[in-house]
Amino acid sequence: MIIKLVVAYDGTDFHGWARQPSKRTVEGELARVLEQVLRTRPKLSVAGRTDAGVHARGQVVSLEVGVDPARVQRAVNKVLAPEIVVVSATVAPQGFDARFSAVAREYRYRIDTGPVPDPFTARYAWHRPGDLRLVAMRTAARHLLGRRDFASFCRAPKDGSGAVRDLRRLAVSRRGDRLEIAARANAFAHQMVRSLVGTLVDAGEGRIEPEAIPAILRAKDRSRAGGVAPPHGLTLERVIYRGA
Amino acid sequence: MIIKLVVAYDGTDFHGWARQPSKRTVEGELARVLEQVLRTRPKLSVAGRTDAGVHARGQVVSLEVGVDPARVQRAVNKVLAPEIVVVSATVAPQGFDARFSAVAREYRYRIDTGPVPDPFTARYAWHRPGDLRLVAMRTAARHLLGRRDFASFCRAPKDGSGAVRDLRRLAVSRRGDRLEIAARANAFAHQMVRSLVGTLVDAGEGRIEPEAIPAILRAKDRSRAGGVAPPHGLTLERVIYRGA
Repeated sequence: MIIKLVVAYDGTDFHGWARQPSKRTVEGELARVLEQVLRTRPKLSVAGRTDAGVHARGQVVSLEVGVDPARVQRAVNKVLAPEIVVVSATVAPQGFDARFSAVAREYRYRIDTGPVPDPFTARYAWHRPGDLRLVAMRTAARHLLGRRDFASFCRAPKDGSGAVRDLRRLAVSRRGDRLEIAARANAFAHQMVRSLVGTLVDAGEGRIEPEAIPAILRAKDRSRAGGVAPPHGLTLERVIYRGA
Repeated sequence: MIIKLVVAYDGTDFHGWARQPSKRTVEGELARVLEQVLRTRPKLSVAGRTDAGVHARGQVVSLEVGVDPARVQRAVNKVLAPEIVVVSATVAPQGFDARFSAVAREYRYRIDTGPVPDPFTARYAWHRPGDLRLVAMRTAARHLLGRRDFASFCRAPKDGSGAVRDLRRLAVSRRGDRLEIAARANAFAHQMVRSLVGTLVDAGEGRIEPEAIPAILRAKDRSRAGGVAPPHGLTLERVIYRGA
């Protein structure tokens, strides 16, 4: 059977999701523990290959196993929690694949604009003191919505798959010193959320005019967009599947 | 002049507040940086000598200096933030002493009762899955309020100062899986908050009858109270001074 794991992790001390020889990665840790339970090396499919330092609340992983999902969950959590936690483990419909069955991904980027950093959120928010103009950020965000070629806002994919994505939501909210940017798309290209956030921050600080965004998109040239926001402010919040 | 520093820290990776040779402590780190700015080793007075692993949002420290408080704040934050952050630095009234001028301390203890731990709060909350009976915890809390000898709820003070404290607030609140216990007293004896929390949890799980609390207090015997909750759930939130 195929099981679906919803996984949360604090990415601070990992070199990202994808397994790498001699580096501590989320996939590497998870696969190591699963191998002990399953007595065979599992092939994991994942919804979002998060970069080093990026966190997840609702990462989704699927794998083919012959044991009870609850046993898999207990075994993983016993060894890896609280850094990596299997939030739920369920039997998935036939043909389910965490990556290819996903219809949308939701990320959230957190910015702390207070004068001094907060020790309790410093691992999960980008400390960027000073005022950000919300109106400019929201205008810039509107120009980015829709099905577009985001080549100016991502690292060029090596597999030639291109950077056309359908960005359905890019919303900026603020509460006190805390600013959050919620992003939702069918899928995101490499470093795309952090590049979108960097550009919104540049707009909010007046370095980019929101009206310049359409030309930046048309250019399909990475050097035209704003900076890339640091990874630790980013969290993969949720992956959406048909019927859920 | 005397300056008052409000200090926040994530206590996870420190051996508590008090300076110790060859151990990383909050006081030790702070004194080291201050010594560089002031060119003399400062004598620090502190409102709450937090134990290893305990956090602070509003710790208060006072010291005698000859330099601008803003400069002290910048220098410390440049080196120690975000683990230790000077939230504010101001000139204090003459005779001010962070420890002896304090009229009350407020702590908060966080418990995560969800089925699996949350990687994002695991450093700051005690993961204790399962239901806690709030009514029993609140009844137990009421029995503990007031000016009492808390010898059953603390480590015996070595200086013979006794354990009489005035506990003015001990409030249990819950939101979803998150339970918080707010405690306020003129001062707390060593391990007193964690011991009170341990007893409330024992009451919430049915191991101690709330009505047994008065007898436990009267016994002045540490073995009669409940367990001691782990340090990482505890945060010193605020110190109160006259006129503020």
